[in-house]
Amino acid sequence: MANKNTMRISYPSSEKVYVEGEINKIRVGMRRIKLLDTVTIDSKGEKIFKKNKPVIVYDTSGPYSDPKATIDINLGLPRTREEWYAKRKDLTSLTEFSSEYARQRQKDPALDAIRFPIQHMPLRAKDKKRITQMYYAKRRVITPEMEYVAIRENQQIEAMGLKSYITPDFVRKEVAAGRAVIPANINHPELEPMIIGRRFLVKINTNIGNSALSSGIAEEIEKAVWSCKWGGDTLMDLSTGKNIHETREWIIRNCPVPVGTVPIYQALEKVDGRVEDLSWDIYRDTLIEQAEQGVDYFTIHAGLLRAHADLAANRLTGIVSRGGSIMAQWMNIHQEENFLYSRFDEICEILAQYDIAVSIGDGLRPGSIYDANDSAQFAELHTMGELTKKAWAQNVQVLIEGPGHVPMNKIHENMKEEIYACHNAPFYTLGPITTDVAPGYDHITSAIGAAQIAWLGTAMICYVTPKEHLGLPNKEDVRNGVVAYKIAAHAADLAKGHPGAQVRDNALSKARFEFRWKDQFNLSLDPERALQYYKESAVKDGEFCTMCGPNFCAMRLSKELRDRDKCENL
Amino acid sequence: MANKNTMRISYPSSEKVYVEGEINKIRVGMRRIKLLDTVTIDSKGEKIFKKNKPVIVYDTSGPYSDPKATIDINLGLPRTREEWYAKRKDLTSLTEFSSEYARQRQKDPALDAIRFPIQHMPLRAKDKKRITQMYYAKRRVITPEMEYVAIRENQQIEAMGLKSYITPDFVRKEVAAGRAVIPANINHPELEPMIIGRRFLVKINTNIGNSALSSGIAEEIEKAVWSCKWGGDTLMDLSTGKNIHETREWIIRNCPVPVGTVPIYQALEKVDGRVEDLSWDIYRDTLIEQAEQGVDYFTIHAGLLRAHADLAANRLTGIVSRGGSIMAQWMNIHQEENFLYSRFDEICEILAQYDIAVSIGDGLRPGSIYDANDSAQFAELHTMGELTKKAWAQNVQVLIEGPGHVPMNKIHENMKEEIYACHNAPFYTLGPITTDVAPGYDHITSAIGAAQIAWLGTAMICYVTPKEHLGLPNKEDVRNGVVAYKIAAHAADLAKGHPGAQVRDNALSKARFEFRWKDQFNLSLDPERALQYYKESAVKDGEFCTMCGPNFCAMRLSKELRDRDKCENL
Repeated sequence: MANKNTMRISYPSSEKVYVEGEINKIRVGMRRIKLLDTVTIDSKGEKIFKKNKPVIVYDTSGPYSDPKATIDINLGLPRTREEWYAKRKDLTSLTEFSSEYARQRQKDPALDAIRFPIQHMPLRAKDKKRITQMYYAKRRVITPEMEYVAIRENQQIEAMGLKSYITPDFVRKEVAAGRAVIPANINHPELEPMIIGRRFLVKINTNIGNSALSSGIAEEIEKAVWSCKWGGDTLMDLSTGKNIHETREWIIRNCPVPVGTVPIYQALEKVDGRVEDLSWDIYRDTLIEQAEQGVDYFTIHAGLLRAHADLAANRLTGIVSRGGSIMAQWMNIHQEENFLYSRFDEICEILAQYDIAVSIGDGLRPGSIYDANDSAQFAELHTMGELTKKAWAQNVQVLIEGPGHVPMNKIHENMKEEIYACHNAPFYTLGPITTDVAPGYDHITSAIGAAQIAWLGTAMICYVTPKEHLGLPNKEDVRNGVVAYKIAAHAADLAKGHPGAQVRDNALSKARFEFRWKDQFNLSLDPERALQYYKESAVKDGEFCTMCGPNFCAMRLSKELRDRDKCENL
Repeated sequence: MANKNTMRISYPSSEKVYVEGEINKIRVGMRRIKLLDTVTIDSKGEKIFKKNKPVIVYDTSGPYSDPKATIDINLGLPRTREEWYAKRKDLTSLTEFSSEYARQRQKDPALDAIRFPIQHMPLRAKDKKRITQMYYAKRRVITPEMEYVAIRENQQIEAMGLKSYITPDFVRKEVAAGRAVIPANINHPELEPMIIGRRFLVKINTNIGNSALSSGIAEEIEKAVWSCKWGGDTLMDLSTGKNIHETREWIIRNCPVPVGTVPIYQALEKVDGRVEDLSWDIYRDTLIEQAEQGVDYFTIHAGLLRAHADLAANRLTGIVSRGGSIMAQWMNIHQEENFLYSRFDEICEILAQYDIAVSIGDGLRPGSIYDANDSAQFAELHTMGELTKKAWAQNVQVLIEGPGHVPMNKIHENMKEEIYACHNAPFYTLGPITTDVAPGYDHITSAIGAAQIAWLGTAMICYVTPKEHLGLPNKEDVRNGVVAYKIAAHAADLAKGHPGAQVRDNALSKARFEFRWKDQFNLSLDPERALQYYKESAVKDGEFCTMCGPNFCAMRLSKELRDRDKCENL
């Protein structure tokens, strides 16, 4: 397996700090960035030092950035959440896996070499018990997960000395109303809870996954940790190659953020890629298999009906969602309605037993500017709204997936329609990409759209890497994609006026103005990159940079002016 | 000097084509991208080939991409526009340079080795003659420049078989009203005219320039050509080091796009960086020196008054515009009003004699999210509007420069205020950067803002490279900055519904859906990057890519579905 040392995460001038819960016995990890003093010279020519308050930032890196934590990917991360529900009477620990496929894989000696070394037996709701966050929220119970996310979202607000509206009870209300989702499968106790909803910080998802053509298990775990390092809030494992089951186990056991999957991919692998052989039984077993491993949310293309596929017939780029195209082909072959739609209640029953959120996939998302906002797309969206109510009726949390390729002038309509048709369920969009003409730069074409749609209310944006449309991303591509999306999400938080969001901008700008270069780097989303670029330009750590040279530094002139003014006022 | 071979520009599967004028004897260069045939299989299993129309795209590369053109940077580019005004009676050819500084440099034998080899004597308006594009436009004369830009802007529209509203007379009206600017100094005959205005394609500016600390002449020309290759519409030479005069001459003689400068930078060099020694005489001589070399537009920070600088006293990041901070310091030292403001009429008199556009600089643009849209910024903007009218009274074309650092929710106010205060003069913004927290990625933080403000009506956006705030950009940084801004500009053209803008997107998406990979690359903004990324993933040129693998290719499934439907319908 991968060298476990590469799995450590560190950030310059930062320390891991924890805030404890008041209601539940929890502690929430955060990152505190220490700053240098501001140095000024007084009228006697003496240096005056003024402290700058450290800045606390949202931290997705989990135990990997805690030097006190034991990191060994063969053990997996600490199973912290197990303690939280140790006393719960509504859960039962199974003695064997419920999925036939899982049992098969477990018994197969050929897989011993690649199997995760520790076998954890799954939990499930006791018969007739309801256990989801939404159920508890409706019952007015504040779960540890709810308190956890309230503390996590508040760090910057309280650092400003403000009282935040994001209380544990506020979180509870948002979850109860379906306006926010806490994806947290009871079988993923390594997870640090996070929340996806319009009134909270905008989140980003990153995708990893080997295809039949590339990538091994070790590389995928490294990518997962790498994604957490740069700020990925959730992680979708879109593997389609061999050993999906074992790869996923390794990833979940080592992943501090929620993990999502698209179960139809694995179901299709099980029938060797023959769409005609897909069946509800195979799909159902796949759902259970993944549920008991700890997948936190499933993308399910249940809103795509036969009638909608017909509406897409005259598109420029047809159906570009993999799940959507699989189901469209299945419907065409069998001349039957989408079984993900017709079996949706049964699906929700399964999801409710593990508290898995459903992310209703938009099989008909537009794959080109030309196809944006067409009747096929919006017809499916309305069916997704219908399914939302069905899921909620079973207390299953719901995300709604959105496009895709959309020009800027058509973005707002997507958000409006989603809110209307899907009853305020959180929107989770892929980009959108705002022009088709820049393959190789789709992290940028889509960050433009993602920032806008997130400002308008999208709760989570799915990252796009520079390799989109061209190939599978490598580690640098993942980094570039994640940072582009952290930018889009943060720009949206600022534009929404999210309390506390501007603390980091202000601290960084103050550092910039005062020529505290190191603080400028350390406060940035990617300190390593900033430092590297600065060093490439190779000047000493002085009060100017290579951009302007010493005579032309606006900030220096501006500071001199201010200092002069001060002297005159004395 | 640089190897002249490196100065050739080529694009894959593209040819240079020319369209001739109807009114004037001009020919407008364009790039035609040839496409492969669409191949389908009929019911008998035979291949059917269907032609795809070539796509014509706007071309900023000038003669560099014409294999028939002679390229030798020691000769400079062909002086095409000289023929256009050979018969004009309102111009006079000078026998010596009007600037004392220019005469000095010309005589200095120490500069022989670095001087551009050919000396072209400058043109100027005859005494009392008015020669600007705006003057002619008001007189209802359609100049070759106006017809040129009309043809240039229309290529995609007419390729769609549509009749465009962008006629030469429409261009004339927009220029007459001040809503659009054609920067075209009569001493830059190598230039291919282009237009900056809200009703036209969004343009991008790129900056080059050595500072005291780095970069030589050869490198700067290479960067200029490089910027034109990727699509830079205008080029600002912001050099602040030694030999600015000679560097500029080399650049202008070899530059097919308009060149802008900030003359105060050179004026400050002339007084060895001592702001207190700046004077109107030195500045005036610098304007004339640069005017006679062929600079097409000057950034002049004339709107910054003493009272405005006071308004900026409580900012987080003070004054971040170099020109603004210089003038603020000058005013403070001399306790006098900004001479660029008090001498503005005299400045315009000079500019009018060469048809140089004034780009009124926003010395108080915000340098952080915190300072965005403050009273200092908008007070200056209103003074800029006052100056706009003064310039127009002398038929000088005007651009208005804008910010800077602005969160998304404050972008619209910038555009509205500019239109109102500056009487519809074209807005030309730097970004804006939408969050301060991502040094190293400011091409992305700012492309997000630039796309939005361009959609709202900004006519030209000034690029930002990944090195912004950190150091001077190298060639790769320039490429990344230019492409990010071409994306922002094009996304805005799409969102504005600019006729024809979507032709390229549609052609590329069709190629993508039909697995014509080469066409997808060739139609993209950066074909080399797209091809490189594709090759890194190393699969054969087949009907799937490494992203999904053969079983999961949505586009293949979707195409199969369509083909199957067709068969069923037969």
